[in-house]
Amino acid sequence: MKKCVGVDLGGTTVKMGILGEDGTIFEKWEIPTRKEDNGKYILGDIAASAKEHLAAAGIADEDFVGVGIGVPGPVRSNGYVEVCVNLGWKDINPAAELSSLLGGVPVKAGNDANVAALGEQWMGSGKGHDSLMFFTLGTGVGGGLIIDGKIVAGSKGMGAEVGHLTVNPHEKDCCNCGNHGCLEQYASATGIVKEMKRTLAAEEDSCVLCGRDFSCKDVLDAAKSGDVLAVKTVKRCMNYLAMAMSWVTYVADPEVFVIGGGVSKAGDYLVTMLKDRYNELTPLSSKKADIFIASLSNDAGMYGAAKLVL
Amino acid sequence: MKKCVGVDLGGTTVKMGILGEDGTIFEKWEIPTRKEDNGKYILGDIAASAKEHLAAAGIADEDFVGVGIGVPGPVRSNGYVEVCVNLGWKDINPAAELSSLLGGVPVKAGNDANVAALGEQWMGSGKGHDSLMFFTLGTGVGGGLIIDGKIVAGSKGMGAEVGHLTVNPHEKDCCNCGNHGCLEQYASATGIVKEMKRTLAAEEDSCVLCGRDFSCKDVLDAAKSGDVLAVKTVKRCMNYLAMAMSWVTYVADPEVFVIGGGVSKAGDYLVTMLKDRYNELTPLSSKKADIFIASLSNDAGMYGAAKLVL
Repeated sequence: MKKCVGVDLGGTTVKMGILGEDGTIFEKWEIPTRKEDNGKYILGDIAASAKEHLAAAGIADEDFVGVGIGVPGPVRSNGYVEVCVNLGWKDINPAAELSSLLGGVPVKAGNDANVAALGEQWMGSGKGHDSLMFFTLGTGVGGGLIIDGKIVAGSKGMGAEVGHLTVNPHEKDCCNCGNHGCLEQYASATGIVKEMKRTLAAEEDSCVLCGRDFSCKDVLDAAKSGDVLAVKTVKRCMNYLAMAMSWVTYVADPEVFVIGGGVSKAGDYLVTMLKDRYNELTPLSSKKADIFIASLSNDAGMYGAAKLVL
Repeated sequence: MKKCVGVDLGGTTVKMGILGEDGTIFEKWEIPTRKEDNGKYILGDIAASAKEHLAAAGIADEDFVGVGIGVPGPVRSNGYVEVCVNLGWKDINPAAELSSLLGGVPVKAGNDANVAALGEQWMGSGKGHDSLMFFTLGTGVGGGLIIDGKIVAGSKGMGAEVGHLTVNPHEKDCCNCGNHGCLEQYASATGIVKEMKRTLAAEEDSCVLCGRDFSCKDVLDAAKSGDVLAVKTVKRCMNYLAMAMSWVTYVADPEVFVIGGGVSKAGDYLVTMLKDRYNELTPLSSKKADIFIASLSNDAGMYGAAKLVL
């Protein structure tokens, strides 16, 4: 069976694994991400660790097809990375460098959210579907679009940068990107907390969250238990996400949507809310795309990175 | 040289041509679209006309690669058409039927706007670019998305149905699709006229269009000549189109945008207005996608249909 190394390169740790073409994980491990000196040690660390584990696993050369790596920033189709703020990288081709460090084995790189989308399509909630849109709702909002089993990275690496879809042009607060009213300002964990604070400031009704510090999970739990202001807030945030999903449908029309990231732990409660609004917003489509919660959790990136070369 | 027949099937006429793989048009002609009896004669007419012209042109069998056809409705990737309102068609596979009428030659079908996008990418304003988003601004708003030289038709034929992107959720008037605030309600010729009437009803300033009937061209001409209310209206409409373009970038990130249809005759005036707003709305992208006016006019569909089989 063909085997490879899948690498999910994050800002704190690098998740690595040896995977087979049927999706079997033979081994997985983590190493720290050394960001000092503009991240110059990262690829060397990855190469050394991969060599060590491959040697220990005794994988035959003829079975080994290469290394796939997910990178936390925009990656062009030729593997070039202009800038990767989290790692301190600038003007680098991590695929070419890692390949050279590994004696010329094939290496392919992709953006981490795109690669996680590929993972979910290959072995997760999108299994069996050729096309898929993945939204990851964490501190920010990222995404990955898969069409015909392939990542749509975009001509400038902006494919599936859905966190920056302008969903509310009337927003006064600025997004990190410089624009106003981006999806990330409402559908991320940060955004949901901020919107809840706005609701509390604007409304006089009582709420279980009044007068205390709260997290995104607290807001979602309050909404699930029926707290009126929390429900109102979560609906407002999910309305923006459903709008974004309707736009994705009228641009690329994927078979399914997969929702991952911390916010997605609210599960069926979110899915039901999203489906109701998404279906209203896509009257043209007689058969609606399905919406699933991601199933691979933190392994999605490693699976997808492996799939880049398998 | 490989040759084929390209067919652009419209509600009134069928545009047909014999094209070569280098984009040469050897011959082009039109036949009427017979819509009586739920369009049952259309494919027979096309087959008969194609046979006649191919025979007269004396094309060698080994050079002939088949027929491509653009259809005014959603076409699934297997060629199946659930419904085509303009032609009266229901539950039909026009590619399979046309192939059978032509003795089994390969036939491929696509949605007319998608096929026109492919035409513009192959031989028109998008030449030399692998990915492109085409907006056609006519009575309605249609579109076609090309990624890696291929049409993104979508899992349910909704790919690039950009006329129905919700650009203004606060809109009270209903779109034909049943939703409110679709791009088509503002950026089509019909939409621009309607928005101009709204402006005139809401504002007290004078306008060259006051007190008379006017067309979309009249509104665009008034705006070009500096009429304040016309400029305000066209800006409002093009702001919605620029928003839609920014969403397409953050979903699929095509290299270029191409604008066709009657409204696009306003040319550079529109392009400049769109660029200004689009650039503001895509701060993430350091190098912006270019925006061009379509160059193949009514032949785009025939070119694109040919490209389906070439």
